[in-house]
Amino acid sequence: MSTRRDLRDAAAQEVRRKASLAKAAARSLGVLPAELRKMALLNMASSIENRADEIVDANRGDMRSFRGPDALRDRLLLDRKRVMEMAASARAVATLADVVGEVVESWTTATGLEIERVRVPFGLVAVIYEARPNVTAEVAALALKSGNSILLRGGSEAVRSNKAIIEATRAGISEMLPVEAVQLVENRDRSGVDAVLRAEGLVDLVIPRGSAEFIHYVRQNSKVPFIETGAGNNHIFIDKDADLNMATKIVINAKAQRPSVCNAVRKLLVHKDVNPGYLRSLIADLSGLGVKVKGCERVRRTVPWVEIASPEDWDLEYMDLTIAIKIVDSLEEAADHIGKHSTKHSEAIITGSDEAASKFISLVDSSTVLVNASTRLVDGGVFGFGSEVGISTQKLHSRGPMGLRDLTTTKFVVRGRGHVRE
Amino acid sequence: MSTRRDLRDAAAQEVRRKASLAKAAARSLGVLPAELRKMALLNMASSIENRADEIVDANRGDMRSFRGPDALRDRLLLDRKRVMEMAASARAVATLADVVGEVVESWTTATGLEIERVRVPFGLVAVIYEARPNVTAEVAALALKSGNSILLRGGSEAVRSNKAIIEATRAGISEMLPVEAVQLVENRDRSGVDAVLRAEGLVDLVIPRGSAEFIHYVRQNSKVPFIETGAGNNHIFIDKDADLNMATKIVINAKAQRPSVCNAVRKLLVHKDVNPGYLRSLIADLSGLGVKVKGCERVRRTVPWVEIASPEDWDLEYMDLTIAIKIVDSLEEAADHIGKHSTKHSEAIITGSDEAASKFISLVDSSTVLVNASTRLVDGGVFGFGSEVGISTQKLHSRGPMGLRDLTTTKFVVRGRGHVRE
Repeated sequence: MSTRRDLRDAAAQEVRRKASLAKAAARSLGVLPAELRKMALLNMASSIENRADEIVDANRGDMRSFRGPDALRDRLLLDRKRVMEMAASARAVATLADVVGEVVESWTTATGLEIERVRVPFGLVAVIYEARPNVTAEVAALALKSGNSILLRGGSEAVRSNKAIIEATRAGISEMLPVEAVQLVENRDRSGVDAVLRAEGLVDLVIPRGSAEFIHYVRQNSKVPFIETGAGNNHIFIDKDADLNMATKIVINAKAQRPSVCNAVRKLLVHKDVNPGYLRSLIADLSGLGVKVKGCERVRRTVPWVEIASPEDWDLEYMDLTIAIKIVDSLEEAADHIGKHSTKHSEAIITGSDEAASKFISLVDSSTVLVNASTRLVDGGVFGFGSEVGISTQKLHSRGPMGLRDLTTTKFVVRGRGHVRE
Repeated sequence: MSTRRDLRDAAAQEVRRKASLAKAAARSLGVLPAELRKMALLNMASSIENRADEIVDANRGDMRSFRGPDALRDRLLLDRKRVMEMAASARAVATLADVVGEVVESWTTATGLEIERVRVPFGLVAVIYEARPNVTAEVAALALKSGNSILLRGGSEAVRSNKAIIEATRAGISEMLPVEAVQLVENRDRSGVDAVLRAEGLVDLVIPRGSAEFIHYVRQNSKVPFIETGAGNNHIFIDKDADLNMATKIVINAKAQRPSVCNAVRKLLVHKDVNPGYLRSLIADLSGLGVKVKGCERVRRTVPWVEIASPEDWDLEYMDLTIAIKIVDSLEEAADHIGKHSTKHSEAIITGSDEAASKFISLVDSSTVLVNASTRLVDGGVFGFGSEVGISTQKLHSRGPMGLRDLTTTKFVVRGRGHVRE
């Protein structure tokens, strides 16, 4: 009992101390010239490259202690190639256009008051994430580029790798920026997470990444503003006018290329007028790739060996090679089904009709709606954000892949010449 | 016990029924042409004018039952003039540029993927507010113009006025828009508020307006995304180079014109090099207007009869004619004091120096920073938003006066030609 409380106190102290340092550093970060932030990130990239051996060594330590499943093991692994990719990603972010100080809108009122809405950093951003050490460098780069300090709390299994990456990052930026701007929470139990969620007044924004259960935990417990990321019960709708070769290519890419990530497809809706022969061959292709296919009654009438999807199936975000297929009477029925079951992450239509595409876009209320493209493309890197802080599934502030602008807020600057309220 | 639960159940039923109707209406609202929304709002304005007598009559009923203080009584009152102003405000919103469907950004990736970030309505927005019936029409107009349905829960003392305004609004829009898009919660106790805060999946965004305690209650209890509005412990800093006549005019306007609202000034910081004779005359002017002046030790050395401000005073949002004055050694000390004590609503500098203005703007982390202008100008109407939904004091999503764009989110639309993830 007392040990548990000691752990909590130690975690809270660590978090408050590091958050205070980072918050103080944030005050200077936002006002430093953009050129300094850019140079710091280029140096950070070189520093990660120069210390690649140390980072790979530290990662070996994490890998030796790791006891989890293979899929997670692969996410934890850092080899030289992955470290070089981390550096390249920081370099890509460095050269993006600076967003701090951007005048979003400006106008002059009839009375001569000059009003500007100016983009400013949040201040201190915290990210809580899984044992994926590449995220450490990506998120740090995006935060610094957008003028924010960053408090990182990565998965406990990656703590050695993360320390090595943070050391390289700090060494890289130290000539241009205060190193206190980058902080790693080293606490390894849940109390470190709780301390971040309770750092009101210090942490301006927390971005949780991870399982649906974890996001739910944050929603219930955070005293700090947060942006929900994550769950992707994503749909592809094959319309009656679809180019069917394109449809196959996209469905296979969206389902099989990397089934455990949030932008993979989980459900396929097929217009009733699509040739049954096509559906048979698509299901055969998917099965050939090891995909487990479930379906509605109508699908089973076409392919009798398909397992019937249960009512719960339509709400599940399969993390493996499973897909459920439903035949629908119309585009409207597809949109209705999506409205009821989707997590509002990403949905795609495959169609040859511009009119159908427009209708689908306006009826589907998700972060990203794609036309004739794979849901796997919903990604900060693909979108050109250098990398991403996460993919927001909420409507407030950010929606979809989050890049530099999503790590900023705005403030109004109002200039008068003695103006008062009449 | 059972009665209390019955009340809760009745409130929850009322809210869920009305929210469901409004949510269904929202699906069509966002896709209707902008011209229809504009015509609907112009009609709403005429309808309010035509029913002015009914609205004033209903308001008389509310006024007869009202038992609160005079300041609140005045906020509840609707006479013909105020009803006409409500209509004028709806007309002003009608003619603003439409924001739905606006392409915020668009670009094409190297692989030819066309990406657009498009502005879309939230869906169903709920606003919980005090007994100020003019807010009912203003918020309904902003919501409809931005393609949202609206669920209104106004102060229980104004329920007759609000019903009359909603009836006029619905009659006005009925030829163009589904009337279900505008809903009033008629429940009169706290259980109606609680039901709104628990309408997950129906209400997309809730905007609470009211006291600091009420906002705190929402923060603790809401299961729905919300935007905090409100408290304004606002500062004016008189710099050493200030035009002192301008300073007096602005301070008096900000303090005395309407002391109970959130954009009034509460604290005055004065540079030590400002002439003591000026401070004496400013304090005399304020006192002459009935303002109670408190001050730091240094202020008292100049004007001995001033009451010493307690440490708590610096954090208080006086709702009456009180001001506390502090002498500071520098602009930096002023910014530090503001950083520690402000609620981050609105802060102003009075200065003749562009350099000092720039420094103040970058050091002060508040929703609005003003140069040579009164804090009272921080207002949606003054800013040109037609009216406002509230003034956000948070950094997420919206900051400062909230107009049409603040009632929208965005979605990504991605168009490919069979693009997949490599």
